[in-house]
Amino acid sequence: MIDRLCIIGVGLIGGSLARALRSAGMCREIVGVGRQSQRLEGARALGVIDRYETDAAQGVKGADMVVVAVPLGVMQGQFQALQGHLAPEAVITDVGSAKRSVIAAARTAFGHVPRNLVPGHPIAGTEKSGVEASFAGLFEGHRVILTPVSETSAGALGRVRDMWTATGAEVVEMPPAMHDEVLAATSHLPHVLASTLVDVLGTMNEHLEIFRNAAGSFRDFTRIASSDPQMWHDVCLANSDAIAAALRAMMRELDQVATAIEGRDGDTLKALFVRAKALRDQYTGAL
Amino acid sequence: MIDRLCIIGVGLIGGSLARALRSAGMCREIVGVGRQSQRLEGARALGVIDRYETDAAQGVKGADMVVVAVPLGVMQGQFQALQGHLAPEAVITDVGSAKRSVIAAARTAFGHVPRNLVPGHPIAGTEKSGVEASFAGLFEGHRVILTPVSETSAGALGRVRDMWTATGAEVVEMPPAMHDEVLAATSHLPHVLASTLVDVLGTMNEHLEIFRNAAGSFRDFTRIASSDPQMWHDVCLANSDAIAAALRAMMRELDQVATAIEGRDGDTLKALFVRAKALRDQYTGAL
Repeated sequence: MIDRLCIIGVGLIGGSLARALRSAGMCREIVGVGRQSQRLEGARALGVIDRYETDAAQGVKGADMVVVAVPLGVMQGQFQALQGHLAPEAVITDVGSAKRSVIAAARTAFGHVPRNLVPGHPIAGTEKSGVEASFAGLFEGHRVILTPVSETSAGALGRVRDMWTATGAEVVEMPPAMHDEVLAATSHLPHVLASTLVDVLGTMNEHLEIFRNAAGSFRDFTRIASSDPQMWHDVCLANSDAIAAALRAMMRELDQVATAIEGRDGDTLKALFVRAKALRDQYTGAL
Repeated sequence: MIDRLCIIGVGLIGGSLARALRSAGMCREIVGVGRQSQRLEGARALGVIDRYETDAAQGVKGADMVVVAVPLGVMQGQFQALQGHLAPEAVITDVGSAKRSVIAAARTAFGHVPRNLVPGHPIAGTEKSGVEASFAGLFEGHRVILTPVSETSAGALGRVRDMWTATGAEVVEMPPAMHDEVLAATSHLPHVLASTLVDVLGTMNEHLEIFRNAAGSFRDFTRIASSDPQMWHDVCLANSDAIAAALRAMMRELDQVATAIEGRDGDTLKALFVRAKALRDQYTGAL
């Protein structure tokens, strides 16, 4: 049970978490923090939050759970703004899709990694953003990865785990570096590929016909290219080494595939498609 | 109206076409042709076809419309098997996802491009294959691209157009080379990217965690990697020049993106994501 939940950044993720915890009866009060009163007033009018502050120091006052749901690029500044204003036993967690950078930001902002900080990442989202797109069921059946470090207290970890479990999510733990490698492969790299593909097609001679005649597979493949550009800019900087490594590995294999297509090397192509189908089908149940 | 429709290759596309035309009351009789009697008997039992032949020469006897729905790799052999057995006014069309190769196959098989041959391609499908996956609504609201050549008779073109219109599809025409460039960009290249991505992830150290923690975006992005490997092998060989050109263009831009990520060049990355989102959003209505 959370007495006063403070959500910093009431967008798709922060807003959906507030809705999910409210409908689970997990919070007595939900305080939203953001920069723009108008947007916060909208969140209040929607019933997502009970009240709001535009000053984070005010917003976290008396909160026993603080969820920092801001873009990775402003995480360090946000931590700095909380310095000295948190209640002694307040638990802090975040929802950033890269974890080593969040831990480094905390170390810089607080001078150490606070024992009540639990780095976290819900593997859920849509290509939309903003509180208007939020909904209580966003995390149901999805994974939330927590990446505690040696400093993290078991009590704080347990409280964050309970919070996410109440949203219907499956909570797992892994080391921050493993999280970043896994997310680079399954989320960040696909996003870079989809955006680059759309961008390349836009430069082609037949780009109007290309988009007009695109099939459902193209729609699925490029949906993520509609996500928030600032967020993805931040992700690419925050997890640059893991994303670059995955992208370079992908490019090495693409070069082999391109050579096979150019050389009409059917055996190599058939073997690729057979391997990929077997892997994809093997994990269809898991996906 | 079609008197006797012969569908050579009663799979997802051939089967769905048969179902759609039957439910539109467009055919008096539907004859299926394939290699395996057992599968054809299954199609007959499902009510997709009225009867079947395993010999194409027998199957096309007396048919006024022949749809060749076989993989691109066996198209030429299939055309050869029809040589001398078609009724004089029979119209032939195909459903292959590369068009210049089909026209070349016809030229080789028949010694010329028959005036009653209308190369065609329905932009519809799922990652499944086989007649069991076929359904009458597959083409509804989807495009069918016809790529007539100078030899093609207007009468044959009109009959194929009418056939596809009856399935609920929107029929458009374009030159074969434009079709192949457009499809390389919107379908063949995404497929190559998705399959290569899945294959690369399968070789990573954390591949079990990678697949276990994959998000919905990954599922959407890689769904097409579950398609029939032989079909995609054939597509890559049949449209190799257009696919290779699109892939090499993609790789050139990926190299710039990788360099930007490695160099933490936020401006370049932000500009990419902004352009891609604008393009994707612009075409969301069209998709």
